[in-house]
Amino acid sequence: MKYELYYWPEIQGRGEYVRLALEEAGAAYVDVARGPRGTAAMMKMMDAQKGTPPFAPPFLKAGKLVIGQTANILLYLGARHGLAPKTEAGRLWVHQLQLTITDLVVEIHDTHHPLGPSLYYEDQKAPAKKRTAEFWGERVPKYLGYFEQLLAGGGGTYVTGRRLTYVDLSLFQIVDGLRYAFPKRMKAFESDVPGLVGLHDRIAARPNIKAYLESERRIPFNEQGIFRRYRELDH
Amino acid sequence: MKYELYYWPEIQGRGEYVRLALEEAGAAYVDVARGPRGTAAMMKMMDAQKGTPPFAPPFLKAGKLVIGQTANILLYLGARHGLAPKTEAGRLWVHQLQLTITDLVVEIHDTHHPLGPSLYYEDQKAPAKKRTAEFWGERVPKYLGYFEQLLAGGGGTYVTGRRLTYVDLSLFQIVDGLRYAFPKRMKAFESDVPGLVGLHDRIAARPNIKAYLESERRIPFNEQGIFRRYRELDH
Repeated sequence: MKYELYYWPEIQGRGEYVRLALEEAGAAYVDVARGPRGTAAMMKMMDAQKGTPPFAPPFLKAGKLVIGQTANILLYLGARHGLAPKTEAGRLWVHQLQLTITDLVVEIHDTHHPLGPSLYYEDQKAPAKKRTAEFWGERVPKYLGYFEQLLAGGGGTYVTGRRLTYVDLSLFQIVDGLRYAFPKRMKAFESDVPGLVGLHDRIAARPNIKAYLESERRIPFNEQGIFRRYRELDH
Repeated sequence: MKYELYYWPEIQGRGEYVRLALEEAGAAYVDVARGPRGTAAMMKMMDAQKGTPPFAPPFLKAGKLVIGQTANILLYLGARHGLAPKTEAGRLWVHQLQLTITDLVVEIHDTHHPLGPSLYYEDQKAPAKKRTAEFWGERVPKYLGYFEQLLAGGGGTYVTGRRLTYVDLSLFQIVDGLRYAFPKRMKAFESDVPGLVGLHDRIAARPNIKAYLESERRIPFNEQGIFRRYRELDH
């Protein structure tokens, strides 16, 4: 079976957490909306009047199943591709961490869109500055400090110990994205989270991830995604 | 086994989605932080340097398990108390809907805190007005319209058909909360979502929920929670 991933074709966005898991697992998949008429196919599935239409991308078609919400897709893939623990307690714990990353991703998005997703960034620059200051002053230390502590407490290579999970892949993306969006702020902050920086580098060096990052399947960061580089927010 | 729920003792907040599920199920539980020294016990569990400390309340202790993140707790409870379908496809679908409600809850919170959770509402009143206008203009119709369509498409009494799930309980709370926080706006909007209003009333009339809502276990809405009534945001 070939998975079908549906996500906006021009950004990494929330779809990237799913792409990283599929790539690490070496799973066969099509990034549907990046192909011809793919976005139209995606919109059609969301517009279904019956059944179980997803509210928003990303969603994954796995045989007859259509699964929406990033963390839910990872819950499904993790169990099937050895990217999560096998015990119920382990699966719930890793999913809990992914939901905490989900919360962080919303807050990253809100740095440039504090007044909501329907207005342009250009129409909310002043509140974006305030929100970004609060984000770096309070929220980044709290979130990344939490994951740094888990890495240190476990004493392992990955967040849950010696075995990679999808949470490690997502934390790679968080570090990578913060480096892209806030190069100055992140440079100054990295010495506070040496464990996370090390994790980022270990993930980037894994053969499947390395090949993916060097391929055209990895969409470059840009100013339509979650992580946006706006100079005025990075000082 | 008696569950232990850990959540801030003075608000409904995110803990309320868990309370509603526990109450509907008739499950035995203690709302720990509402008891003597409960908040200190809660903070201590979050401050653990080893193991699996939760990032934030709510979290649920079920025997040896400590489960964090509202939707994750409901995933666990749903399977154990008949509040979710038994098939994998059904469980994933209901969890996906709960995660969509989670996204909506963040946006509700952001109406009064667009500049982030660390600043007071009084310090962000002007951006809160803009965010609220966008929320009611764009986001409420999109989110509630989606759930309204699911109710209509399924043709059943509840979102997934004839059987109640934890998603129905959460949608009750959304309607109840929006009525509290934005009485005028919600009154004008309700005719667009008759299915959801009907669902709200059916949930409120269920014996366990009715008894809960009339008890002291139901903390009244107030201006420290997710749903806050600020007159200037409701017109």
